Amino acid sequence: MKRYVIISADCHAGPESPVYREFLDPAYRADFDEELKERERLIAERRAQTSSTNFVGDDEFKEEWFGEDEEGNSLHEIGLRGGWDAVTRDKELDADAVCGEVVFPGPDAVTGTMGAPFGAGFNPVATKSPGHLLAGARAFNRWAAEMCSQSSERRRGLIVAPLLDDLEGVMDEIRRAHGEGLTGGIIIPPRWTGHESYTSHRYDPVWALCEELSLPVHCHSGPAPQEDYGEAPGWITVYGYETIFFTGRPLWFMLLTGVFERFPRLRMAVTEAGSYWVPDMLWRMDMMVSREHGMRKLVGTRDVLRMLPSEYFDRNCAIGSSNTRRRELARRYEIGVGNIMWGNDFPHPEGTWPYTRAFLKDRFWDIPIDETAKILGENQAEFYGFDMGALQPIADRIGPTPAELGQTDESVLAKWEPLQAAGRPWLSECEAVAVAGE
Amino acid sequence: MKRYVIISADCHAGPESPVYREFLDPAYRADFDEELKERERLIAERRAQTSSTNFVGDDEFKEEWFGEDEEGNSLHEIGLRGGWDAVTRDKELDADAVCGEVVFPGPDAVTGTMGAPFGAGFNPVATKSPGHLLAGARAFNRWAAEMCSQSSERRRGLIVAPLLDDLEGVMDEIRRAHGEGLTGGIIIPPRWTGHESYTSHRYDPVWALCEELSLPVHCHSGPAPQEDYGEAPGWITVYGYETIFFTGRPLWFMLLTGVFERFPRLRMAVTEAGSYWVPDMLWRMDMMVSREHGMRKLVGTRDVLRMLPSEYFDRNCAIGSSNTRRRELARRYEIGVGNIMWGNDFPHPEGTWPYTRAFLKDRFWDIPIDETAKILGENQAEFYGFDMGALQPIADRIGPTPAELGQTDESVLAKWEPLQAAGRPWLSECEAVAVAGE
Repeated sequence: MKRYVIISADCHAGPESPVYREFLDPAYRADFDEELKERERLIAERRAQTSSTNFVGDDEFKEEWFGEDEEGNSLHEIGLRGGWDAVTRDKELDADAVCGEVVFPGPDAVTGTMGAPFGAGFNPVATKSPGHLLAGARAFNRWAAEMCSQSSERRRGLIVAPLLDDLEGVMDEIRRAHGEGLTGGIIIPPRWTGHESYTSHRYDPVWALCEELSLPVHCHSGPAPQEDYGEAPGWITVYGYETIFFTGRPLWFMLLTGVFERFPRLRMAVTEAGSYWVPDMLWRMDMMVSREHGMRKLVGTRDVLRMLPSEYFDRNCAIGSSNTRRRELARRYEIGVGNIMWGNDFPHPEGTWPYTRAFLKDRFWDIPIDETAKILGENQAEFYGFDMGALQPIADRIGPTPAELGQTDESVLAKWEPLQAAGRPWLSECEAVAVAGE
Repeated sequence: MKRYVIISADCHAGPESPVYREFLDPAYRADFDEELKERERLIAERRAQTSSTNFVGDDEFKEEWFGEDEEGNSLHEIGLRGGWDAVTRDKELDADAVCGEVVFPGPDAVTGTMGAPFGAGFNPVATKSPGHLLAGARAFNRWAAEMCSQSSERRRGLIVAPLLDDLEGVMDEIRRAHGEGLTGGIIIPPRWTGHESYTSHRYDPVWALCEELSLPVHCHSGPAPQEDYGEAPGWITVYGYETIFFTGRPLWFMLLTGVFERFPRLRMAVTEAGSYWVPDMLWRMDMMVSREHGMRKLVGTRDVLRMLPSEYFDRNCAIGSSNTRRRELARRYEIGVGNIMWGNDFPHPEGTWPYTRAFLKDRFWDIPIDETAKILGENQAEFYGFDMGALQPIADRIGPTPAELGQTDESVLAKWEPLQAAGRPWLSECEAVAVAGE
């Protein structure tokens, strides 16, 4: 059997903090030195306390993540080294069965003290000033272009594009970074605090540029209105619950106000925020726009959208569905099999690395082979322009076969037939049978 | 066959605007006179423009809602008159097959120029000052206690309780209004703008009082951060999409920070914000708290919750599932058949009045009779303390039989068996077959 070409739509890379200095515009280096000192101070303060990280997980997981193997390496150290060292990185991706990857910043989702300067991470927020943020973005983008030039057939790098303030400045940076080889797309801040939201036509020039350069727009998980959560015990679970919503928000702001009508070739992905919510989102949107009784007094999209929201979604959007759940796979005909892009979130502890082979077997054992191939790689290849021919030799070396994912029994597939036939039942007028997995 | 006792968990009542004057504390009457003048001015301004309402729906629906019948009545006028006149109200509820009702303020969801003083509606927001808001709440509560004393076996009135500012003042008002006969529960503002959110223990005295008086806490649809939407065409659909989330928000803030652990007999309902999202909410919460791999680095609820979130939900919460959709009924074993409380939203145009009999047939034709009885009435009776014995004679007169809802074919029920057996599949470890309806 042919081996799957697996592409992770969600990986993270970045150098050790001080390295960013040489990639920064000189005018910002002194301020970055101050930021580095502050990071050192934070690390020392934490070491003096009970824990050297912001890791509040259980002891078993701490041991797994920070404990050393026979060679004296912890998962944490391997991951961070793979964050900047392409050789380590390729070795880890190989072991994890991943041929290609989409590269976001921020390899260290543990200590919170590494990362691009001035808040220019996968969820960019100005920690000092908008000018500093854009300078930090330039530093990451320059570094990332170099990193992604190694094993370049395996990588698509993203451009950090903090577009809320200096629209012209960020467009210059998008053009520059694209020219340097970052062709995967741009990363925008999912929250617009103090600025116009993504219903505004103010951002149209950026969408036009992304359409022109074929750069998908990305929102990556992490954002939430932390100011709402207070300090009561349990607030962190509220954060974990809500960040899904606050990551996806720009998607429906843009979709429902006609961005994809005005820019028919613009593409957008929401990454590491699950995909389980997509069916209900499409159902609600389609019903609101078309024939929902409860919206009859408020119908307001007739002049804005010329297609159904689900049609724009299929044409323009995709989901970076890191660590895809059984429950999400069961809903794949409503989400759209062609819209789901699996990812391992390397090297974050909430992802599947270094256990991806086991996770894939657990999740995909009863999913048809052609659909598995799409979700694990073909969708990513189409969305990001990977050359599947160039990746196949890597897959022949490291990729799992369907049998290795437990996809051995054709008879289990019959259960999906009514679901597949119904597709999106609110459009097919056919009530579907769905497997509601874990 | 026995006729269904139907109770609407979502109805609205209120007098014509000037009537509130006599129910207001004298000190606030002059300011209310000013507010009335402003409302008049708004109405006149709109009349001078194209439309006398904020109704932007299609022409067909406008004709249906505002056009006159042979007796010269429009649906809009009948609804508003039923808003304050108990005789008209009972007649309309009878015609709509509804025996009992839970009473929120705000019968007029069309012009936006009626309603309790100073923002004290079903989604209370201070339009003038916190003191004014509480005065407006008292005025509504006094009026509602009188209205609900007519056909009292049919009504449970809710207390408007704007608790964000003057905690003691609002607790006094809850005690007073409860003493006057409003025993259905309290209505809190779903948004806490500028105040501590519902993760805060600051509101514990109110929860303690509600537990003591057996008053469920309510959030009703409508809220959203309108400041985020701007003015671009299509923004109103974004609002319609998001108000579901912003109505339910206090539920997960309270649940995940242990309010129902600290107040085990406190109950809470989220009303007119759908119920389709409840299965995913419970799944996500349970997974986060128990064994979700992606949350292992952040586990933070161990000291806050002693049960699974879904267990608190079953014990303490319910959904005012106005105009329940097929898609929601298909998920009833995950939501919990005992947690869904149907409502007709009388007299709002987004509800099912005056077409409830047709809607029920369309939605419930293949739902088992015992489950239909729960969702349409028994759950509400238990949650709000209606006397089903007192309502049965009304049902014998106006209630539909199962046959009238099309529930004639026992053979259709077999399709639900695997779903029922699986319940919540993430807990039963049994992947369920679900009907994903419209």
